[in-house]
Amino acid sequence: MSTIFARIIAGEAPATIVYKDDLVTAFKDIRPLAPVHILIVPNKEIPTVDDVTADDEAMMGRMFTAARKIARDMGIAESGYRLLVNCRDNGGQEVYHLHMHLLGGRRLGPMLARRD
Amino acid sequence: MSTIFARIIAGEAPATIVYKDDLVTAFKDIRPLAPVHILIVPNKEIPTVDDVTADDEAMMGRMFTAARKIARDMGIAESGYRLLVNCRDNGGQEVYHLHMHLLGGRRLGPMLARRD
Repeated sequence: MSTIFARIIAGEAPATIVYKDDLVTAFKDIRPLAPVHILIVPNKEIPTVDDVTADDEAMMGRMFTAARKIARDMGIAESGYRLLVNCRDNGGQEVYHLHMHLLGGRRLGPMLARRD
Repeated sequence: MSTIFARIIAGEAPATIVYKDDLVTAFKDIRPLAPVHILIVPNKEIPTVDDVTADDEAMMGRMFTAARKIARDMGIAESGYRLLVNCRDNGGQEVYHLHMHLLGGRRLGPMLARRD
């Protein structure tokens, strides 16, 4: 059931960790889509946003304060960035351990790509 | 300082509200980019993600449980969706009252549009 993210959080798989606390861990995406591309992942294994419950709200909120800190650390707080969470197929979710993408370092353009 | 979102939350500007509780309000985007395009907005006026503090974490987490409920109500929980928060210029933030886009109802494609 576990994904590569659980092994990264446990320190059992390599990653460039940029932030870690009691609720979330953040590391560089190995296939960056922008100059800054960080994944912010709850330490708890939750597959998708559709599995989040009221008990998880503080943890989910922590993802935002972690994102804020990371963005400041990386010097993109003023220029700006995008936070993005994909859920299931139409969202394009690839790893079924909920995660937030932090994208920045350049002008990111439209929210959705042009339809083919 | 207030934006159109504060007036919508206060019931002083028109919008199609799809969810409201003590912490967040959600309504249809008037310029939808996908068959489902909802904005989930904290009732508290916070300009950007860079202004979120630890005291806001429960509220920010509520945005996810609200998104989950709305997605289920709109029949896109199984097919999937994308949650997206833009911060400042490089993110493409247009209204400076923090908000989350809930996008779904079709396959959304790549996370970022192709660079020009």
